Amino acid sequence: MVILGIDPGVATVGFGIITETNGVHKLQRYGVITTPSNQRLSYRLKQINNDMTELIKTFKPDAIAVEELFFNTNQKTAVVVSHGRAAILLAAEENGIPMYEYTPLQVKKAIAGYGRATKKQVTDMVKRLLELEVIPKPDDAADALAIAICHARFTKSRLNPKSEKSTI
Amino acid sequence: MVILGIDPGVATVGFGIITETNGVHKLQRYGVITTPSNQRLSYRLKQINNDMTELIKTFKPDAIAVEELFFNTNQKTAVVVSHGRAAILLAAEENGIPMYEYTPLQVKKAIAGYGRATKKQVTDMVKRLLELEVIPKPDDAADALAIAICHARFTKSRLNPKSEKSTI
Repeated sequence: MVILGIDPGVATVGFGIITETNGVHKLQRYGVITTPSNQRLSYRLKQINNDMTELIKTFKPDAIAVEELFFNTNQKTAVVVSHGRAAILLAAEENGIPMYEYTPLQVKKAIAGYGRATKKQVTDMVKRLLELEVIPKPDDAADALAIAICHARFTKSRLNPKSEKSTI
Repeated sequence: MVILGIDPGVATVGFGIITETNGVHKLQRYGVITTPSNQRLSYRLKQINNDMTELIKTFKPDAIAVEELFFNTNQKTAVVVSHGRAAILLAAEENGIPMYEYTPLQVKKAIAGYGRATKKQVTDMVKRLLELEVIPKPDDAADALAIAICHARFTKSRLNPKSEKSTI
């Protein structure tokens, strides 16, 4: 199973692609999509949408995993991330890839074993689980890999992965 | 000049299309795009994106006008509207139509003459300016027409219409 994890945004979108075979996770690719801050927002969203489509066509993920709609950070961040997140949802929909959503708590539990794990504990575990030599950088890419592993573990453990639904 | 005004959302997107010729505004069409609340968000965003594209192809607007990114309502609303707004921005970008943004204050001033006008005063003026027999319903459509008229007036008066820019 190929899983594409996404840490959404507009200036920077983290992505992490892993495969899961019999409980073993292997890294395929990680990185960030970045968009220039001097361009209009619609142009940047289109770029994110295009780059997401290219990732999907290249790596053919069976599932895309992303953080749930969130309402607990500052509003400006929430508004901006929501625009980027929508461009990602659209790319998934346009390419027929099912999306799954996880809360930050679920991601921490799935990776580090408990919901109050620090960011560093999570990224250390990402490095260990994927048998990497270094912690993936930047943080957006590490977060995206964590979400991808989270989905792999939810699916593997026959817990119900939470498929994206309308929460409006 | 054909102007498409948009009041963004996910459950309901208001739209209003007017023409402006020598300072005279004429209604072309108004209405709402609605999406089913029992469908996943990505599906609904794709539907908004598709319907927007169809409106653009049918009415061939020279400009699309929409409210600015906003940060002063409740966060859940802001997050949801931002997702819908992104689907609209993408449709504009994909079809090469320039987008213009106005604050609620600018819309009220342009339509009713002062920034503290009530919602009712604005919709009454929309009815009058477009020589309609009734106030357009639902409110989302009336709001969309107000934004379209706002753009027509900014352009006509040679004030600088505020083209969409990245505010992130």
